[in-house]
Amino acid sequence: MASSKPSPGSADQAINDGWYTELSPMWPGQGLSLKVKEILYRGKSDFQDVCVFESESMGTVLLLDGVIQATDRDEFSYQEMIAHIPMCALERPAKKVLVVGGGDGGVLRELARYPEVQEIHMAEIDKMVPEVSKKYFPEMAVGFTDPRVTLHICDGIKYVEDSPEHSYDLIVVDSSDPVGPAEVLFEKPFFEALHRAVRPGGIVCTQAESLWLHLDIIKALAAMCKEVFVGGSVSYATTTIPTYPSGQIGMLVCAKARTEQGEGGSAPLDPRTPRQAEPGPLPALGVPDLQYYSHEVHSAAFVLPVFAKKGLQGCLTFQ
Amino acid sequence: MASSKPSPGSADQAINDGWYTELSPMWPGQGLSLKVKEILYRGKSDFQDVCVFESESMGTVLLLDGVIQATDRDEFSYQEMIAHIPMCALERPAKKVLVVGGGDGGVLRELARYPEVQEIHMAEIDKMVPEVSKKYFPEMAVGFTDPRVTLHICDGIKYVEDSPEHSYDLIVVDSSDPVGPAEVLFEKPFFEALHRAVRPGGIVCTQAESLWLHLDIIKALAAMCKEVFVGGSVSYATTTIPTYPSGQIGMLVCAKARTEQGEGGSAPLDPRTPRQAEPGPLPALGVPDLQYYSHEVHSAAFVLPVFAKKGLQGCLTFQ
Repeated sequence: MASSKPSPGSADQAINDGWYTELSPMWPGQGLSLKVKEILYRGKSDFQDVCVFESESMGTVLLLDGVIQATDRDEFSYQEMIAHIPMCALERPAKKVLVVGGGDGGVLRELARYPEVQEIHMAEIDKMVPEVSKKYFPEMAVGFTDPRVTLHICDGIKYVEDSPEHSYDLIVVDSSDPVGPAEVLFEKPFFEALHRAVRPGGIVCTQAESLWLHLDIIKALAAMCKEVFVGGSVSYATTTIPTYPSGQIGMLVCAKARTEQGEGGSAPLDPRTPRQAEPGPLPALGVPDLQYYSHEVHSAAFVLPVFAKKGLQGCLTFQ
Repeated sequence: MASSKPSPGSADQAINDGWYTELSPMWPGQGLSLKVKEILYRGKSDFQDVCVFESESMGTVLLLDGVIQATDRDEFSYQEMIAHIPMCALERPAKKVLVVGGGDGGVLRELARYPEVQEIHMAEIDKMVPEVSKKYFPEMAVGFTDPRVTLHICDGIKYVEDSPEHSYDLIVVDSSDPVGPAEVLFEKPFFEALHRAVRPGGIVCTQAESLWLHLDIIKALAAMCKEVFVGGSVSYATTTIPTYPSGQIGMLVCAKARTEQGEGGSAPLDPRTPRQAEPGPLPALGVPDLQYYSHEVHSAAFVLPVFAKKGLQGCLTFQ
């Protein structure tokens, strides 16, 4: 059937007649449409098409290769959940954390809420993303101003491979979808490197798509992680977020075995139980109270609808 | 800013160039777009514009006044949750249930799973909806074939007002949004009639919009219900559903005081705890196992993100 809808891949193609529609081969035949008030920025980095626009209903919107990464209206849901679920699940407070991707700064902002954290490293491949975020998304980019943060513009895979073994309490992989520059962040060699770089009993938490759209991708990813995190655990949590495809996104929470080979009789970490206190606001940076995450939201986020629980059967340690 | 997007209100206006976009004054500046394979039905009833189309990604789609009511792909989430949360929360199995609206038949299908139910009444104002559903949505309309179901084509408010006091164990209000024919289903006189028609300890469960879009509407509705269900309880649960605005919808669960005046010292029913067994498939009608609802999903559905919990503070009995 003929269609005048633009094809995906760049903001130029996705914005038409004052409306943006999020189209992608990742979700064929559907897409969220947002009314555009003003296009604030258009650029092309070495890696991707970057666009910022002011929308009528969602505040400022960041697009990479024509796909929504964050909006003022609902970014807190994703950023809080991908940061605080693993941070609060850890058995002892995290001191050293790595973020792979996440160049908008929102996850940094959430990690900065914890006074016990001493170092936060970020490996972001595209320097244009932090630059654009600092200019157009001050409430997310505030994370970069925390003195414990070091930003490395580099290939995240290489950065993880070069990290000493057992370097981090937590690694958050805040990637875009597995098409384009983020594709390798969904593959086994990267997860093997992540597993090596995190300490025994530590956690790797990765952006892991939507149950409603990509149960097959999630299943393959979880099965692969179960092979890599031998003796540890692999679990899946979700959050609601209106501007992501299907209104929901999930994260895979992989805990490394407490002893390196998974021996010694200690049970793997069950991330469904929060163990660290809910973090508070960060007045020094003007970061307000949490808006989405709480301990009860934490535990409820691991409860999957029947179709998803059945679909992921055997691939998850706890569900 | 000029825009070529159609205005809402009818399918003719919402379908353009092979794509449908769901626009409404209820969610200005945004809308889900779906690629249309084929328009199967267009009609105008005494109450609303009715359209059915085959989509590329969501199966068959039912529109009323240009707004999505149900799609093959995800209708089970809403239908299961609005039926099984109250059914399983009741202290003794429901025998007599009323559905106001719900003319697609999906809620009837879910209620029919319970062998203890003796009578299921439906008050649907628009006869075109069941007719169209029977033709184009056999998997939802199968609910009408259950011998315990009686369909009344009538004004739901009048039907509830005319029902004897304490008639029902449960009343499900499966309405469209509070614009057009369903507007009165969000007002106090209707809730007073519902409260009268349900038995002490019984439940009224109503479609109650999205936390992300309509916290103000939900707050007003909950506050009003708290006045009406004196001595009982008012709680709010949510479910994810990609084709509803923002990908999420909620329901208000109102339990009537166990004794008529809320006296006698018995605590109000806490609907967060399931008390009845999860219902199974219904082979006689070809209804498969549950796809979304389980007891653990039931309890998790009442856990609200911080922004919503704060926004509804004081309006809900349990949250």
